[in-house]
Amino acid sequence: MSLSIIQVGLGPIGIAMARKAVARGHRIVGAVDSASTLQGRSVADVLGCAALGTVSGSPEDAPHADVALVTTVSDLERVVPTCVPFLRRGTAVVSTCEELIYPWKSLPVASRTLDEAARMGGVACLGTGINPGFVLDYLPVILSAPVEEVRSIHAWRVVDAGKRRGPLQKKVGAGLTPAEFAQRVAAGGFGHRGFMESLHLLCAAFGLDTAGASTFIEPVISDVAITTEHASVAVGSVAGIHQGARDASGRIVLDLKMYVGALNPADIVELDGTPRIRVEVQGGYHGDIATCAIALNAAEKIRSAQPGLRTMLDMPALCAPFVRG
Amino acid sequence: MSLSIIQVGLGPIGIAMARKAVARGHRIVGAVDSASTLQGRSVADVLGCAALGTVSGSPEDAPHADVALVTTVSDLERVVPTCVPFLRRGTAVVSTCEELIYPWKSLPVASRTLDEAARMGGVACLGTGINPGFVLDYLPVILSAPVEEVRSIHAWRVVDAGKRRGPLQKKVGAGLTPAEFAQRVAAGGFGHRGFMESLHLLCAAFGLDTAGASTFIEPVISDVAITTEHASVAVGSVAGIHQGARDASGRIVLDLKMYVGALNPADIVELDGTPRIRVEVQGGYHGDIATCAIALNAAEKIRSAQPGLRTMLDMPALCAPFVRG
Repeated sequence: MSLSIIQVGLGPIGIAMARKAVARGHRIVGAVDSASTLQGRSVADVLGCAALGTVSGSPEDAPHADVALVTTVSDLERVVPTCVPFLRRGTAVVSTCEELIYPWKSLPVASRTLDEAARMGGVACLGTGINPGFVLDYLPVILSAPVEEVRSIHAWRVVDAGKRRGPLQKKVGAGLTPAEFAQRVAAGGFGHRGFMESLHLLCAAFGLDTAGASTFIEPVISDVAITTEHASVAVGSVAGIHQGARDASGRIVLDLKMYVGALNPADIVELDGTPRIRVEVQGGYHGDIATCAIALNAAEKIRSAQPGLRTMLDMPALCAPFVRG
Repeated sequence: MSLSIIQVGLGPIGIAMARKAVARGHRIVGAVDSASTLQGRSVADVLGCAALGTVSGSPEDAPHADVALVTTVSDLERVVPTCVPFLRRGTAVVSTCEELIYPWKSLPVASRTLDEAARMGGVACLGTGINPGFVLDYLPVILSAPVEEVRSIHAWRVVDAGKRRGPLQKKVGAGLTPAEFAQRVAAGGFGHRGFMESLHLLCAAFGLDTAGASTFIEPVISDVAITTEHASVAVGSVAGIHQGARDASGRIVLDLKMYVGALNPADIVELDGTPRIRVEVQGGYHGDIATCAIALNAAEKIRSAQPGLRTMLDMPALCAPFVRG
C-alpha cells in the first residue's frame, strides 16, 4: 500500500528516510524544515529523488498526507508544535524524537497535548528508533513474552563508533581528554539521548515504579592509540561514551558503550527469570540503518494503530519489506 | 488485573497453566475436559489448587468468564466446537492449538467460523505457543522491524529431547529404528505440529505467496549410544526428529531438530537482508515452560485485542510478570 508522506526535517537521517520511502513506492508530497536556506526549494531537488512540492518552514503550509515522518530534534517540547498541526488534520506522525519513545512520565503535559491532537484527527502518533525504541526497551519486553516471570532485566549495546559517521564519533567524545569529557558532561546536552525514556517504557510494560531511577554517563578511556577518518584517540584519552539508566532497585539496567575500536559489538538482552534468557544480536543492529528502517516500517503500520499518542508497546508486529532477488 | 478463567483441557500442560494462573492471582472459575473420569469432579481437586466449580464435559455448561484457556488438541477442526460457545457469549479464547497459530490459509472455513463467533461476542480468539507461535514465526517478524529489507529468513531451533518429558521423547521417536520411524511417518500424525502454520504466519506478515510451500520430516540418527530415564538410543537408531517447512523459493526455511543428546540447543534467527541479522537465544526457550507462559501472558492482554480471530501479529507487546524478590 503506497503512502503519501511529508518529510519533516531534512538532515542526513531525514533525507535518507525520504529516499528509502520513495524507493519502496511511497510518495513524498511535501517537506518541512526550519532552515531558511532550504525553504522554497523543490523537495525533489533537496532529496535527490522523485517528490512533490517545495520545502516549507511550517507544518501548517504542508499539504495533507497519510503520514508525517518527523526527524528533527530530540527535545519533545520542540517537537510538539511540529506534530500537533499534522495530527489535528488527520496526518499520522512517526518520529525518531528520542523523548517521544515514552513521554508520559517525563513530559505529561506535552504527552496529553499530542494525545488530544491525535485523537481529534483520528490518527496515531508514535516515537520509534533503534535506541531508544527497540534494543534496550521493546526487545526485552518481547523476549519476555514466553517467560514465566522476570526478576531482573539487563540490556546492553556495544557499538564501534569507528565504523559510524563522523558526527557520531564527535557525539561520543572520541579524542577528547578525560577533563574535556567531564566539561562537556557538566555543560549538559552531551552524549546519547533516550535512556530514561527506554526505562520508562520498560517500567510501563512491567508495571514497575520509576521513582528513583537514574542515568549515568562516563568516558570509555582508550588503552590503545586509534586513528579513524574522523578522530584521533591517544592512549589515555577518550574513545567514547558509556551511558545508561537503572531503576532504583538495580533490577533494570540499560547500558550503551559506543566508542572507537569497540571490541565485540553486539546487542544483548539478559532476563533473569523463569527460565533465564540470554539473547544476542551478533554485531548489533546498525544505528542509522535501523532507525531509518524501523521508522519506515512503523509508518507502514501506523494507520492501523488506535488514535492517540502510542508507544511501541501498543503497536502490532512491525516488519521489513521482503524483497525477491 | 485479576482474570476469571475457564481451563479447557486438563492434561499436563492445562493443569500446569491453570495452577500458574492461580499463582498469579487469577481465578479459575470452571474447567472442561472430554474425559468422563474427570467430569463431575471438583476443579480444585483435579488442579490441586484453589478453583471453583466441577469439571464439565461441555463448554455450554461452563460459567461465564473473561478468558478460556484451551489446551486440548492440535487439530483445529476439533477445537472449533470447543471455542465457539465461549466466544459467542463474550469469553475470549487463548489456545495452544498449533493449527490456530495462523489458520486462515489451511482452514478458511473453520477460521471464518471462529472469527464470526468472536466478533459476535466482542472478544478475540488467539492461538499462541513457543513453536509454533514465537521462535520460528513471530520472533523473525519482530527482529525484522529495524531492518531495511529482507531477502531470506532462516529460523531454527535445536532442542535436547533428553532433558524433556518422557512423552516428548516418545513423540520424537527416540529409540526407534530408522524403519520404524519411516513407518510412523507413513502412518501420519507423527512428529511435531505447526510448521505450515508458522510459514503461513511469516508469509502473511511479509506479504508472500505460500503456494508450493512444503514440510519435511526425517530422523536424526544417533552416532552414539544414549540412555535417558525414558528412552534407550543405540548407535544407528533414531535419536529424534528433524522437521520443518520451506516456501517454494527456499527463501524461508524453518527448521526444528529435537533429539536426545542434542548438541548446542538454541533458537536462532538469521535474516539475510540490509543489514544481515543473526540472533541467538542461548540454550533456546524451554518448550513446556514457554508455551505455558506465553499463553498466560497473552491471556492477560487478550481483552485489549480487537474482536475476531487474531494472530500474534495483531497483538500488542506481550510481557512476563515482573516479580520482586
